[in-house]
Amino acid sequence: MTSRISASALLVSAVVALTGTSARSEEGMWLINRPPSETLSSRYDFTPDAAWLEHVQKSCVRMGRGGSGSLVSGNGLVMTNHHVGRGQLAKLSTPEWDILKNGFLARSRNEELKCPDLEVMILWEIEDVTGQVEEVTKGMSPSDAAKKRKEVIATITNNAKESSGLFCEVVKLYHGARFHLYKYKRFDDVRLVMAPESSVGAFGGDTDNFEYPRFCLDMCFFRIYEDRKPLQPEHYFQWSGKGTSKDELIFIAGHPARTQRLYTMAHLKFLRDVEYPSALRRIWRREVQLLNFSARSDEHARIASSSLLSHQNSRKAYTGMLGGLLDPAIMSDKARAESKLREAVKADSTYAAEWGDAWDEIAQAQAQYAEFHELDRVLRGRRGAFRGQLPGTAQGLVRYAEQIQKPNGERLPEYRESSLESTRLQLLSPAPIYPTLEIDALASGLRLMAETLGGDHPIVKTALKEMSPIDRARALVEGTQVGDVEFRKQLMAGGSATITATNDPMIRFAIAMEPEIDKLRERHEQEVDSVQTEAYAKVAAAKFAIEGESSYPDATFSLRLSYGTVKGYNDGNTHVPAFTDFAGLYDRFETRGGEPPFTLPERWVERRSALDLSTPYNFVSTADIIGGNSGSPVFNRNAEIVGLVFDGNIHCLVWNAAYTDRKARAVSVDSRGIIESLRKVYDANELVAELLAN
Amino acid sequence: MTSRISASALLVSAVVALTGTSARSEEGMWLINRPPSETLSSRYDFTPDAAWLEHVQKSCVRMGRGGSGSLVSGNGLVMTNHHVGRGQLAKLSTPEWDILKNGFLARSRNEELKCPDLEVMILWEIEDVTGQVEEVTKGMSPSDAAKKRKEVIATITNNAKESSGLFCEVVKLYHGARFHLYKYKRFDDVRLVMAPESSVGAFGGDTDNFEYPRFCLDMCFFRIYEDRKPLQPEHYFQWSGKGTSKDELIFIAGHPARTQRLYTMAHLKFLRDVEYPSALRRIWRREVQLLNFSARSDEHARIASSSLLSHQNSRKAYTGMLGGLLDPAIMSDKARAESKLREAVKADSTYAAEWGDAWDEIAQAQAQYAEFHELDRVLRGRRGAFRGQLPGTAQGLVRYAEQIQKPNGERLPEYRESSLESTRLQLLSPAPIYPTLEIDALASGLRLMAETLGGDHPIVKTALKEMSPIDRARALVEGTQVGDVEFRKQLMAGGSATITATNDPMIRFAIAMEPEIDKLRERHEQEVDSVQTEAYAKVAAAKFAIEGESSYPDATFSLRLSYGTVKGYNDGNTHVPAFTDFAGLYDRFETRGGEPPFTLPERWVERRSALDLSTPYNFVSTADIIGGNSGSPVFNRNAEIVGLVFDGNIHCLVWNAAYTDRKARAVSVDSRGIIESLRKVYDANELVAELLAN
Repeated sequence: MTSRISASALLVSAVVALTGTSARSEEGMWLINRPPSETLSSRYDFTPDAAWLEHVQKSCVRMGRGGSGSLVSGNGLVMTNHHVGRGQLAKLSTPEWDILKNGFLARSRNEELKCPDLEVMILWEIEDVTGQVEEVTKGMSPSDAAKKRKEVIATITNNAKESSGLFCEVVKLYHGARFHLYKYKRFDDVRLVMAPESSVGAFGGDTDNFEYPRFCLDMCFFRIYEDRKPLQPEHYFQWSGKGTSKDELIFIAGHPARTQRLYTMAHLKFLRDVEYPSALRRIWRREVQLLNFSARSDEHARIASSSLLSHQNSRKAYTGMLGGLLDPAIMSDKARAESKLREAVKADSTYAAEWGDAWDEIAQAQAQYAEFHELDRVLRGRRGAFRGQLPGTAQGLVRYAEQIQKPNGERLPEYRESSLESTRLQLLSPAPIYPTLEIDALASGLRLMAETLGGDHPIVKTALKEMSPIDRARALVEGTQVGDVEFRKQLMAGGSATITATNDPMIRFAIAMEPEIDKLRERHEQEVDSVQTEAYAKVAAAKFAIEGESSYPDATFSLRLSYGTVKGYNDGNTHVPAFTDFAGLYDRFETRGGEPPFTLPERWVERRSALDLSTPYNFVSTADIIGGNSGSPVFNRNAEIVGLVFDGNIHCLVWNAAYTDRKARAVSVDSRGIIESLRKVYDANELVAELLAN
Repeated sequence: MTSRISASALLVSAVVALTGTSARSEEGMWLINRPPSETLSSRYDFTPDAAWLEHVQKSCVRMGRGGSGSLVSGNGLVMTNHHVGRGQLAKLSTPEWDILKNGFLARSRNEELKCPDLEVMILWEIEDVTGQVEEVTKGMSPSDAAKKRKEVIATITNNAKESSGLFCEVVKLYHGARFHLYKYKRFDDVRLVMAPESSVGAFGGDTDNFEYPRFCLDMCFFRIYEDRKPLQPEHYFQWSGKGTSKDELIFIAGHPARTQRLYTMAHLKFLRDVEYPSALRRIWRREVQLLNFSARSDEHARIASSSLLSHQNSRKAYTGMLGGLLDPAIMSDKARAESKLREAVKADSTYAAEWGDAWDEIAQAQAQYAEFHELDRVLRGRRGAFRGQLPGTAQGLVRYAEQIQKPNGERLPEYRESSLESTRLQLLSPAPIYPTLEIDALASGLRLMAETLGGDHPIVKTALKEMSPIDRARALVEGTQVGDVEFRKQLMAGGSATITATNDPMIRFAIAMEPEIDKLRERHEQEVDSVQTEAYAKVAAAKFAIEGESSYPDATFSLRLSYGTVKGYNDGNTHVPAFTDFAGLYDRFETRGGEPPFTLPERWVERRSALDLSTPYNFVSTADIIGGNSGSPVFNRNAEIVGLVFDGNIHCLVWNAAYTDRKARAVSVDSRGIIESLRKVYDANELVAELLAN
């Protein structure tokens, strides 16, 4: 027990949590070093002690750049969702063995497949560095403070990395009121152990996504290796012998990516009127294009499936989030709460002087951003013009050469010393690249620029070079060597001079686009981000002062602890029970005639009679989650696995802005369904033995 | 032969066509009263005489509000596309007999099914009324002229209707340089005779749409009744005994809806940068929503299929059109031609004074429109907020009551005396309405408003009435009686007073939205439409003066004659032959494993050996078509049917802006494939006998 989240730190947190109860019901994605101990203790007669918290913390893992998972054996076995592992499963597939279609089971350690670019992290230590950050930015203008903050954060991170040897990052909490240093053990030798077929892992596909009742075996298993040997972790979750049951208290620990619960009304309206509609437009567009691409052949369908599913998932999520913001019930609650807080600030002249202008500052930042939001998203957004592996990698190589020349504190976060290892892993990934999909993706990105900015916009002209988007995309993809890992290594080794000298068209394309992207990044930082950081720090300070410091911060893709109850709900006149079972799976399969996305693999049809059809398969609970929590373990107060989070129902999509437990539920695979299917369908007895070993 | 397109009028046209040859190759959607006689004569040694032209004209029909067709028997048999008839096929389907799925064949006249709201028109006479229109608007400002023009057009139309008893409309040609009065025989007792299964009619679905080689039996047959008896037309197309062959001259006569070939550069850039991207965004969005809706059940899929296919078709079309405008080759051709014309105008001081400012005026009108284009499309566009049958019908009823109080000349076109019959047919249609689809569609429309205009926009607040879009849509659909034809009749009979007094929520919704829509219509007419009409008249006049009056006007959903050659093309290194056959159909069926959209009905699988597999099935030609031409007859110089137009390949999608025949082709069903399948697969021997009767 060498963790810096020492017992005393935990005591402080527990005391702090006593001071207020603004969170209702089973709401909250709590910091692992500031758990809702008082509530747990008073309502459930359970007080998590330091050992329990450390055990949970170190048994959880962060998967790549967007998912969660857990250690579930003393030999480094990691459990996560099929849809979290999906990108790797696709990359490991070959025309001869399509893992997405056929599934995978390693019969021995030798058969485990090394993932091309999967990174897994275990949170090791947390340190509050708010004081260090605030000290150096005191009294500065927002944009000066932002620059200074960036420097000090880089320094803190780098020093921490050097002294600890761990992967470090400073997490901005409460949108800027607190800064915590998170230190992770990082692993990049991760191997695939078991994955079911996609048809089972994602049974019901996009149709059932975010729905309930549900019948998905959305799981897969990896193993962490260290020095080519399976990791022997001190902490990992035990498997529960009896699973969970209705009304039981359960916990979820994982990495929720982003929520907007502390956002001001102006900010929520910006999401409602600008950001979400804009994101949805790009998602709908690309979803249709990917459906078209996929329809051309089975091979096309296979290589595009990860991207398509990701778009479909985002589309449902954004639709639900936008739906929440268009619901007057939710928005008027938010408005009332904000008015109350602002009134309280106004009523106190010290408060008013210190924090009173924060809300207007945020509104002003949103108004600023609205002016260049489309341009910004098209050039800098994840679903913007730089679609596809090759353009993204080219952009990364260009930045790498440029950024590593700079002092550490002035670099973009991914290129700071503390993150370079991860970044190199991505840039040198040997994962396969599919030229047909690359052309389709890049042509789509180029057309998006033209559609959004107009064909005569200078940056569009720069990008297209007097060619049509499809011709230009083809020329770039067919002309580039960026697909070749050796070429990338040479460019990285050669540095800025080599990059500047190369004739590779994709690299030249990335170089040509960079100045405009830089300008936008700078503008966003100055006019939006830095203003918000300062203003939200004030809002948070006001909240702490008036409502007590009992609230949890918005999600930040760092470890959080949620708790809740296994519980069904009423939807209209229907009661939806908490659990489904295998009988329900086969029923749905038959009702939908086994047509996609309701097909089952041959093996599942054959083994039907071997299965105990009453085995619990999926279940719902009230625990508070959001995207990024996918793959999180569900465990009981003994820290024993009872399930695996993989989704929420449609009603929980508003959770990004506001928690409600009337109908909203998190959806998990039941631990008993996992064992039953591993045993009876997959004959994976060794894996079962490893999971159940104590 | 009582037509006003008399022999002398035709002579004039032929002479005019001699004066210039700005159209290249086999380009052109020619006015039937101004055919490209000189070209046909010199290149193909064929001169269409007045009798031939009248025969063609009166053998063609216009289908509903967007398709073409032809009379193909002396008993009023009409041939068109399956996808043109599709809306009616869906409306005639019941849960017991899904015509889209199972197809339909009437074994006797008694079994023919009356369409709920299909209207078919035969063009009877054309009259040039340009002089009458120009006389009354001379010297007026654009917006005064627009008002006056509307009045005089209403008067001309109404007088023509009263004196002829025909359905009349004034067609604006060359965007305002010419006005022709078109008089139609109108029929609304139209019955379904035969339709194949959708899987055959639309084999390959969205994947193969706009592609070639192709394998679709995209046909269906209706019969026109007059006084409850089959129409006995004087003119109808005979069936060719031997079909067509490679390199043969063929003709297509139909109703191309809209092209933009005469558009100025500024106008094309408006399409490229504003209108098309905006339309595509709404199409992608709704396509995804409809796919989701359809995935819920077979019933959902059935009731949404027409709307889904229409969106998918539009999406491919707009994608192609936008692709054309993003192709520098096409745009620079256009720019050069425009510069040349403008230089010639500048060079002549009279020309310059009269027409020189037209291009800038058009650019100015586009800039104006860009300012309110999104709002306009959301509130007035076909894919805007008024989605679904119920909201559209409610809007129609509200307008009906309001408009018929006005003098004829001041009404909106659909409510003028000359069009009232058609409008009433639509408003009182007994076609089924599906509440689940209505709720989905209206909720989508309401969300579209919020997404586009922002949740705090006054018109959004008016529309939503403090409810979420889905709740509001449900309340409106579940609360309205507009689905009841009797209720609609009462409202129409009761007039404005009844409408104002009703509590029906959908009617109240339509009333609440009307003022803003009116304002937009007025604004569009004043700032955009009237300016363009005047300016394009100048551009056309300049073109006539400098290049000769040999050009055809842009498409206007009125009858046009195209000609071309049956001819394959080279695509990359592949030669695509002109014809496909039944062997190819079965090959594609097998290659794609019979998975949707490549399924074939049982009957087609069973009858395979009965078919002569080498029978020509689909073919391509260079004839110039566009959306609206669907269902047009393809005929030879003897006016004998050799095919049925149903599509273009992907390369012809740029035809909206510019004709090219390098790879672009129209796609038709071969007349021989039609007969072979009717005989061997459908046992439709009486229908075949009727088609082949002479």
